[in-house]
Amino acid sequence: MRASESPTPAERRLYELWSEYCDLEAAEALLEWDQETCLPSRAHDTRGEVLATVAALKHRCLISCELRDALAACAVQAEAGSVLAAQVRVARREVERAVKVPERLKREIAAARSAGLAAWQAARQARDFSLFERPLARMLALRRDEGAAIAGGGDPYDALLDRYEPGSCSAGLEPLFRRLVDILAPLVEAVAASGVTVDESIARGHFPGEGQVELGRRAAAAVGYDFEAGRLDASAHPFCVRVHRRDVRMTYRFQEDDFRPCLFGILHETGHALYEQGLPEAWHRTPVDDAASLGIHESQSLLWENHVGRSRGFWRWLVPHFRETFPAAATFDADELWPALHTVQPSLIRVDADETTYNLHVAVRFELELALFHGELDVRDLPRAWSERYQRYLGIGPTHDAEGVLQDIHWAQGSFGYFPTYTLGMLAAAQLAAAARRDLGGLDAAFADGDFGPLLGWLRERLHGQGRPHPAGELTARATGRPLDVADFVAYLRRNAEAVYAVAPPCGPTP
Amino acid sequence: MRASESPTPAERRLYELWSEYCDLEAAEALLEWDQETCLPSRAHDTRGEVLATVAALKHRCLISCELRDALAACAVQAEAGSVLAAQVRVARREVERAVKVPERLKREIAAARSAGLAAWQAARQARDFSLFERPLARMLALRRDEGAAIAGGGDPYDALLDRYEPGSCSAGLEPLFRRLVDILAPLVEAVAASGVTVDESIARGHFPGEGQVELGRRAAAAVGYDFEAGRLDASAHPFCVRVHRRDVRMTYRFQEDDFRPCLFGILHETGHALYEQGLPEAWHRTPVDDAASLGIHESQSLLWENHVGRSRGFWRWLVPHFRETFPAAATFDADELWPALHTVQPSLIRVDADETTYNLHVAVRFELELALFHGELDVRDLPRAWSERYQRYLGIGPTHDAEGVLQDIHWAQGSFGYFPTYTLGMLAAAQLAAAARRDLGGLDAAFADGDFGPLLGWLRERLHGQGRPHPAGELTARATGRPLDVADFVAYLRRNAEAVYAVAPPCGPTP
Repeated sequence: MRASESPTPAERRLYELWSEYCDLEAAEALLEWDQETCLPSRAHDTRGEVLATVAALKHRCLISCELRDALAACAVQAEAGSVLAAQVRVARREVERAVKVPERLKREIAAARSAGLAAWQAARQARDFSLFERPLARMLALRRDEGAAIAGGGDPYDALLDRYEPGSCSAGLEPLFRRLVDILAPLVEAVAASGVTVDESIARGHFPGEGQVELGRRAAAAVGYDFEAGRLDASAHPFCVRVHRRDVRMTYRFQEDDFRPCLFGILHETGHALYEQGLPEAWHRTPVDDAASLGIHESQSLLWENHVGRSRGFWRWLVPHFRETFPAAATFDADELWPALHTVQPSLIRVDADETTYNLHVAVRFELELALFHGELDVRDLPRAWSERYQRYLGIGPTHDAEGVLQDIHWAQGSFGYFPTYTLGMLAAAQLAAAARRDLGGLDAAFADGDFGPLLGWLRERLHGQGRPHPAGELTARATGRPLDVADFVAYLRRNAEAVYAVAPPCGPTP
Repeated sequence: MRASESPTPAERRLYELWSEYCDLEAAEALLEWDQETCLPSRAHDTRGEVLATVAALKHRCLISCELRDALAACAVQAEAGSVLAAQVRVARREVERAVKVPERLKREIAAARSAGLAAWQAARQARDFSLFERPLARMLALRRDEGAAIAGGGDPYDALLDRYEPGSCSAGLEPLFRRLVDILAPLVEAVAASGVTVDESIARGHFPGEGQVELGRRAAAAVGYDFEAGRLDASAHPFCVRVHRRDVRMTYRFQEDDFRPCLFGILHETGHALYEQGLPEAWHRTPVDDAASLGIHESQSLLWENHVGRSRGFWRWLVPHFRETFPAAATFDADELWPALHTVQPSLIRVDADETTYNLHVAVRFELELALFHGELDVRDLPRAWSERYQRYLGIGPTHDAEGVLQDIHWAQGSFGYFPTYTLGMLAAAQLAAAARRDLGGLDAAFADGDFGPLLGWLRERLHGQGRPHPAGELTARATGRPLDVADFVAYLRRNAEAVYAVAPPCGPTP
């Protein structure tokens, strides 16, 4: 995918210029990783200055005449469907977005991002949204300006969404979310009405953090994460960041009374990391060297977290290691544990939510950010609007802001339009997992033997190795044989609810 | 020192452009810190690419027409002796060095630096210089080219030395080193002839690393290091790096059978860090926001390591904390320990050497790098030449390359002309310590009370707050009342040797 066998001068120039852009992205990724894991407390302001400068330099790369000339020359030379044509198409998309946003605005956003992160951390610690209100309002205004600049006369929100999920728009997503809410809300109700309570004490107790991290490390390595090309560190909110393909870093957090959040958090980030580590070597420092979309990215994290990590086969393999790590606590086998990994229980924290209620959390965020963007909601009213919607969809509400609107880092860094990709990822993960099970057969037995290679190989071939040169929507369709829909996901949830809660199928409208 | 009350447009432009340069320096510092502390093993090559790009961007900042125009305009406006005049003078020095070095060469050096670091680490682990020979030869050739480009017809080595120690040249340093060797060699011999052996078992035993780091942390905080504006991490070779004033990071290493290397290593890096944390806020992101010279920098690390950390007063304060950390090991009081902190004993590792023999290590490096630069020594003959000189000056030689020429990181990163600054720092540390003791009085009693504020205050006023706007040589002279010489340093060593080894003064020629 890199360059032709004998690249033209224009092609060489394109890759040379793009390498510089990629190197600035790598520096930026490290500065951001460090900000979440290592940065001394008094250094946040100045780190913001540095990030603002790097953002400005990236911007200047994209809008430079040299790059535009190289792209124009390459566009003339590129045959339709060729590698070069894909490189040019992807690069031009970035350039066009950049050209429309003035450097001043980029700088302000980078600075607001650092200020926002610091304020968010302080507000979260104090459980007080008011400390975060002004930086968030500022960020919202800046991002709205950015969206408007990109969208021309179109919807600023869609312009931001399109960065994360090329080709998506809120008008397309709104019915999808309504449909899911219409299926999930009754399913959650049916579970509550079943009267069945899952005994989760099996997964609770005292699990020292060190052991949890060790177990997570072992699981990550077993499924294929390359620790010589990455790291695992502590942070307030787990994330995965690629500095470059050989330096894909993950973070974790843990709670000592329940082993699930840490382990599944690590498996989740491992799924992201496997995608990044699996991008073809030949793409290094070229325009296509990136994930196809955030939805596709999320499908990988969720596939490994849920469709592997919560499977009976996986636990047949992990239980002996678990017993080694926590000899006192582990008295269960895979079948006994399984229901505790498939509970349906409304809760307040999105990243700890079960697979069924999770999408209701996302629906709340999606609706709120749409309302903020469309001027139907003021930032200061967020906590109230948050509580209202949680009551409506999940029947519960936060007792303080840290378990409400302050729980996620995304808005603090200005990532509006990001949340819906989680649900797109949920749908794609289920559809990909179902296709892989059909294609490969016997996956549970392989997992039980600690053999995750066939699944990883299937994903590397069908997805990781294809990536950005193809439109995101096309990718899932090519890998699974049909366009993305909610069928496999809903079927998966219903199967689980049936097994755990004896809920009779079907509940709610079929998708 | 920042800008005038009402800066002119040219002044504003100068600071704007220089801020970008400083931010790239901050990114570079973080990339380098990470390389030594966190970087996954497979990521070294690509990190080299990123560093090469950042180096190229810094270079482009310095050679830009905008910066040259802004400097020219400011030079016309600046009154002699003004803040602006100092900013312009310092900035121009950097610009002139940069203009003379082509970007291609800068890129090659940055790439060679990363390759050199990786090869050095591998060679060190394998104790085999031959693995490092080619990368070192490549780096030497590149640095010689760089020195030649800067020096015009002059000595390439002096051009590199001048970066670290403005105004120095090898012709001035050679007699200084000869004089020191002429005094130190007989002193070392006299100590050996004294027949006195210091019982160092007092400092040896089993000291778990965690406790050592904790003790080092306590000492660093007590003397004034701000942990909210820095970090302390593990690395193969201890160092201190400023990302910026509020993010000054140190590293340590330890050996469990002797507490001294770790503790004095941390105090050493703390001395560097106190200087960086003490640079005036108002200089932030301006040309003068840097140390006056590496010799001055080293004077601060050595002052805190040796003239504070090895003093009786300091240990009167530390002993109770030491006993808390290592209840089983610590049976000594400050006076009993003191001789074990002032031994004179030829050894192989520079960073672990005592204050007297240390300068003989530096003399070897200085002579060898001069010989390499002047074509009198081939890289492949380094291990042999190293052994010969160690035999001549110290009467001992390494059994393998890791305790010989592979022990230091400097040449791996291409820092030729750096080593002599250690000895300049030794001299300045002794002269500054003597002056502070004269000026302040009763310092030992203050140290015994854990009160290091008066000394830090004196240094902040006389040195840290002055810095780069003044020539390095002038700084020591202004702070101590006379130009830098060897008198205080030699007197200090002789006093110690007299007390520990009953060596009769004077031994060897007076300085």
